[in-house]
Amino acid sequence: MRPAALYDALFSPASVAIVGASDTPGKTTARPMEYLRRHGWKGDLFPVNPARDTVLGERSWSSLGALPVVPDHVFVLTGADLAIEAVRECADLGVPVATIMADGFIEGDDRGTARRAELQAIVGASGTRLLGPSSLGVAALGDGFALTANAAFAEADLGQGDVFVASQSGSAIGALLSRGKEMGVAFRGMVSTGNELDLTLGEICLGSVDDSRIESYALFLENIKGADDLRAFARAAADRGKPILAYKLGRTEAGARLAVSHSGALAGDDAVADALFRDLGIARVHTFEALLEGQNLARAVPIPVAGTKPRVCVLSTTGGGGAMAVDCLAAAGADLPGPSQETIDRLAEAGIAAGHGALIDLTLAGTRYEVMKGALDVVLAAPEFDAVVAVPGSSARFHPDLAVKPIVDCAAGGKPLAAFVMPAAPEALRLLRSSGVAAFRTAEACADTVLAVFGRRGPAGGERPRLKAPVGGSELLDEARSYEVLGEAGVPCAPHAVVTATSLPSDLPVAGPVAVKVLSSEVPHKTDAGGVVLGVTDGAGLRAAVGRIARTVGERLPGVAADRLLVQTMVRGVGEALVGFRHDPDAGPVVVLAAGGVLAELYRDRSVRSAPVDAATAHEMIDEVVAFRALGGYRGAPAGDLDALACAVVSVSRLAETGGAAILEAEVNPLLVLPEGHGVMAVDALVRRGSED
Amino acid sequence: MRPAALYDALFSPASVAIVGASDTPGKTTARPMEYLRRHGWKGDLFPVNPARDTVLGERSWSSLGALPVVPDHVFVLTGADLAIEAVRECADLGVPVATIMADGFIEGDDRGTARRAELQAIVGASGTRLLGPSSLGVAALGDGFALTANAAFAEADLGQGDVFVASQSGSAIGALLSRGKEMGVAFRGMVSTGNELDLTLGEICLGSVDDSRIESYALFLENIKGADDLRAFARAAADRGKPILAYKLGRTEAGARLAVSHSGALAGDDAVADALFRDLGIARVHTFEALLEGQNLARAVPIPVAGTKPRVCVLSTTGGGGAMAVDCLAAAGADLPGPSQETIDRLAEAGIAAGHGALIDLTLAGTRYEVMKGALDVVLAAPEFDAVVAVPGSSARFHPDLAVKPIVDCAAGGKPLAAFVMPAAPEALRLLRSSGVAAFRTAEACADTVLAVFGRRGPAGGERPRLKAPVGGSELLDEARSYEVLGEAGVPCAPHAVVTATSLPSDLPVAGPVAVKVLSSEVPHKTDAGGVVLGVTDGAGLRAAVGRIARTVGERLPGVAADRLLVQTMVRGVGEALVGFRHDPDAGPVVVLAAGGVLAELYRDRSVRSAPVDAATAHEMIDEVVAFRALGGYRGAPAGDLDALACAVVSVSRLAETGGAAILEAEVNPLLVLPEGHGVMAVDALVRRGSED
Repeated sequence: MRPAALYDALFSPASVAIVGASDTPGKTTARPMEYLRRHGWKGDLFPVNPARDTVLGERSWSSLGALPVVPDHVFVLTGADLAIEAVRECADLGVPVATIMADGFIEGDDRGTARRAELQAIVGASGTRLLGPSSLGVAALGDGFALTANAAFAEADLGQGDVFVASQSGSAIGALLSRGKEMGVAFRGMVSTGNELDLTLGEICLGSVDDSRIESYALFLENIKGADDLRAFARAAADRGKPILAYKLGRTEAGARLAVSHSGALAGDDAVADALFRDLGIARVHTFEALLEGQNLARAVPIPVAGTKPRVCVLSTTGGGGAMAVDCLAAAGADLPGPSQETIDRLAEAGIAAGHGALIDLTLAGTRYEVMKGALDVVLAAPEFDAVVAVPGSSARFHPDLAVKPIVDCAAGGKPLAAFVMPAAPEALRLLRSSGVAAFRTAEACADTVLAVFGRRGPAGGERPRLKAPVGGSELLDEARSYEVLGEAGVPCAPHAVVTATSLPSDLPVAGPVAVKVLSSEVPHKTDAGGVVLGVTDGAGLRAAVGRIARTVGERLPGVAADRLLVQTMVRGVGEALVGFRHDPDAGPVVVLAAGGVLAELYRDRSVRSAPVDAATAHEMIDEVVAFRALGGYRGAPAGDLDALACAVVSVSRLAETGGAAILEAEVNPLLVLPEGHGVMAVDALVRRGSED
Repeated sequence: MRPAALYDALFSPASVAIVGASDTPGKTTARPMEYLRRHGWKGDLFPVNPARDTVLGERSWSSLGALPVVPDHVFVLTGADLAIEAVRECADLGVPVATIMADGFIEGDDRGTARRAELQAIVGASGTRLLGPSSLGVAALGDGFALTANAAFAEADLGQGDVFVASQSGSAIGALLSRGKEMGVAFRGMVSTGNELDLTLGEICLGSVDDSRIESYALFLENIKGADDLRAFARAAADRGKPILAYKLGRTEAGARLAVSHSGALAGDDAVADALFRDLGIARVHTFEALLEGQNLARAVPIPVAGTKPRVCVLSTTGGGGAMAVDCLAAAGADLPGPSQETIDRLAEAGIAAGHGALIDLTLAGTRYEVMKGALDVVLAAPEFDAVVAVPGSSARFHPDLAVKPIVDCAAGGKPLAAFVMPAAPEALRLLRSSGVAAFRTAEACADTVLAVFGRRGPAGGERPRLKAPVGGSELLDEARSYEVLGEAGVPCAPHAVVTATSLPSDLPVAGPVAVKVLSSEVPHKTDAGGVVLGVTDGAGLRAAVGRIARTVGERLPGVAADRLLVQTMVRGVGEALVGFRHDPDAGPVVVLAAGGVLAELYRDRSVRSAPVDAATAHEMIDEVVAFRALGGYRGAPAGDLDALACAVVSVSRLAETGGAAILEAEVNPLLVLPEGHGVMAVDALVRRGSED
């Protein structure tokens, strides 16, 4: 089934069957039918309940096979085991889409694992696609199609809008529906994707991109699944100018562990999810409210922007509120340059004193339409700003004509414009939102959105390697072979030679002083094993070192051979980096850059991106790692060769592109950063390669 | 005037005069009179406007002197210069309190500075106290006393509650009023303190503590002024069991710079403000909404708590919402231990599967009153939790009886209980709040409040040194004299001796190898000046070093004497710390602990407290500095003597208590941390002492 056909079967079916529909009003399993009737859905509805003749006053059917038609979409509300049987029946009948509400398909519990396998076998062998399990259903709001058990759809009027919501959490669609209702944001469609055993959120959204009634997307994610589908969707949406905002749980370890227990997926590293969003041009917000409040701003900022810090102008009729916006924006990482002298002069011509600092505070000029409008006209035309955040004060509640109306009148001002409304002023918020201005109840959600939307880039150009699950075994290469792989990729390493204990050269094989290290893929932690001797300067020292290593390693790791050794010239850098590469099972290949050493580890000071990356992105990564500021000539210290570091990051990231026996994992640690112009040098490395196909 | 009498004059005056009252309805200067009439204030009101016979239909008076009584409180709405004259008249008449709305009294502009001086002279020489300038006024809501120009008070009904709001920002009182209205939180009183030229926020609040209609406080601060007043208030409030929540601007540099331009105060270091709040037992929140939404939680948690990480139970009827709460709480620093086996068993007895991980998700058990109530009863009694956050899902909107009512019924459950309501459910929020449960619209504000409230301690016991502005000059001590001061305070330093170039000893005066350093308070950056030679091992080396230092310092700092030198034994530590002390002009004495070195500086890795501190607090500070985790035996590295480090922090912090010529500033950098059991040693130090009185 093509994605668009799938989308139609899910959201615009001609006929729907509900297996396990209850006759007891208000029960969870009665809700989908109640909601479809309440909201006036026009399609053919078949409740299937073999125990009853009627359900909620309508004819009930004994089984799917007994229906007069093959329904387009079957919603299964029974428990897990009966649900499997219902899906089997769907497969036999050729039903395009079945949705399972039941839980009980979690990996890690025996029955769950067995049920997953059974469902997958049924679905894999048939033309039927499966939504869920653990899906609360789907809704196409303008059509009254609320095929869902979420209590929030008891709403008298679902509204009809142009935002499409896809959520791994079922309860989130209800929360978004009601919050949207309250804030004046309405929806085209909503889907709860649950465990995504078959259909992923990305695939469903991909099917929706040509729905002309959709202008933008709100995603609620618990984890990353089906990154390839998500990528295809993100690209298609970007091509159509339909922005995507995403909120993802699991920023913390406690949250990530929960995602495991709740959905049955492996908990990915949240930084990897961040990297993927960035690569896909998806704006990740960190506040739930921004997911809806931010839609208008996402639409106002063209998707392929530079991806740099936005330069934001804050303009307020409230000193306190304006300062709150400045504080939150600065904390989130925005640039707040304040008005240029030219802008100050132009404001003065309009009779407005700009004050000083990052905030243009109109308090003294007076809260009047002309003042706010005049100031907005000036700053919207000022080249030093990428976006304007207007902050109306108390007047917004009872006199929106004074400071809110001028914002509405500037909505089409050619520059992204948002509003943080400091008092409680629900009507002002609705007025702004219906005029296309992103209006925020909190300064936090405002700042969150501004940074997320400007931080986007267009989905990465060129083809990304498709995700391939590492099949078969893998092989850990020793240090010397790891250097070979990295060297071919373009990462230089310090001069070294391999020697054996039985035929040692009489002199050092490379320039000294040298480090002597045991060479074995069985000893990944060489220092802990006593497998390293530093500062060796001659042949005698080399022999002594080799002897010492053999003894210590023999004691600490009995049975491990320590007869091959790597002799490497000791090099001094002005700094150390860790560059890593791996295939994330959910998000695909990623490259990691961190500063070397214990402190960087304690501070979790690192940057992650989807691999491969280009030089510009590598430099962006370097900028993100705080410790590397010490290599930029900080406080008179010698500057490090950051260009060479960027090249090494690019090279390591390109390990994603190796054909044949794929590189599954690589880590250069440390990569010494030499003084400016002198490059970088790996002095330890580890590569894991997939078995040859 | 005693604080309580001042409070009465401000909030319960028998008579009020409004100077500059306008006859034009809706104008800012007409508002106070309009609001007083609209809300039915019962006192005597005298508009003063020499240009008119009547104002808004009431008799107008030509001057304050023409009034039949001396009013208790005069609100001056004129421009700055006329306002000074009005205050002069108040002073002459013996008016207890005058409030100025005008701006124009900012330091840093000549006219502002002149006006400040004039006002201060008038007020200082009289019995009249001044609120403002730049105050939008005061309100006692239950009495209809809205003596304010803030547009939000146009509200039809101001409500009547038990929260007292004090704000340096005038617009914030309007925002809080309207937001409180929307969320079902009402107020006893509100005051906008503006520039605090005379009356500080702390002094006004101190006057209010015995108002039995006040249960708790919400402060909106732009900067710290009058820390002594704030301290007196915080203690009095703590004694009466009335908690204080505070929101402060200026977390970022951009925000802090703004506080300068907006209010005329010096921008303090935000970390210093944090330290002061902590010392005063004030719960600082970082989201504006928490200031109101959090009041009930602050009341539910006894003020003098341990000040440790709260162990929080999250209980939800929505997997997604529960996970959001867990994520936000964990990100804010809460401990989320999950239920103990005993609690899991007790839940199971009640028919509830606890799931695994930090969240108790009742989704599978079903959203029913008995389920939520049963689970709450169990977790509220479970000793492993300090607080419970309940998260009702979509049912909260239309069926609060299912998952919200049980929370209300557990409000008096003996353990702090809060709710994050995932859907938009305003009625559920009101129901919870009116039952005394802190109910939050966002998981962020919920987590913010939980951490702020549990992070409090009772205001520090014992007397704090009063703030004394450093009067007269100060003296920078050289390294040797700095060691003396620190040594007396109890901070050990590495063995050293002072030598002079003209009479050098033939051998090293202390055990070598030594560092030789120029000794002069005129050379604070010794290394930059070429004033340091390391690794000297004998008398000849000492002579060479002294010669080299004399030459280099002579070249780089012509005219500076380099003939006195400090010879110090070189000591190796396992880590380095910076311990500092200073008198903050606004917040009083503070002690700072940071890791040594460039990285700690880049990461801004430090901990600040009001000084002096005790050993427990010093250990808390050590725990806050991330880099010191490397000294706790991390990854097999040698552990540092963190007890000795804590002692040194205590000693440095006690410099606050020195009598006579006060220590204004001290910095030990680096303080070497030796291996466990071997103490710490200063190897550089700088002390600034006030001139002898």
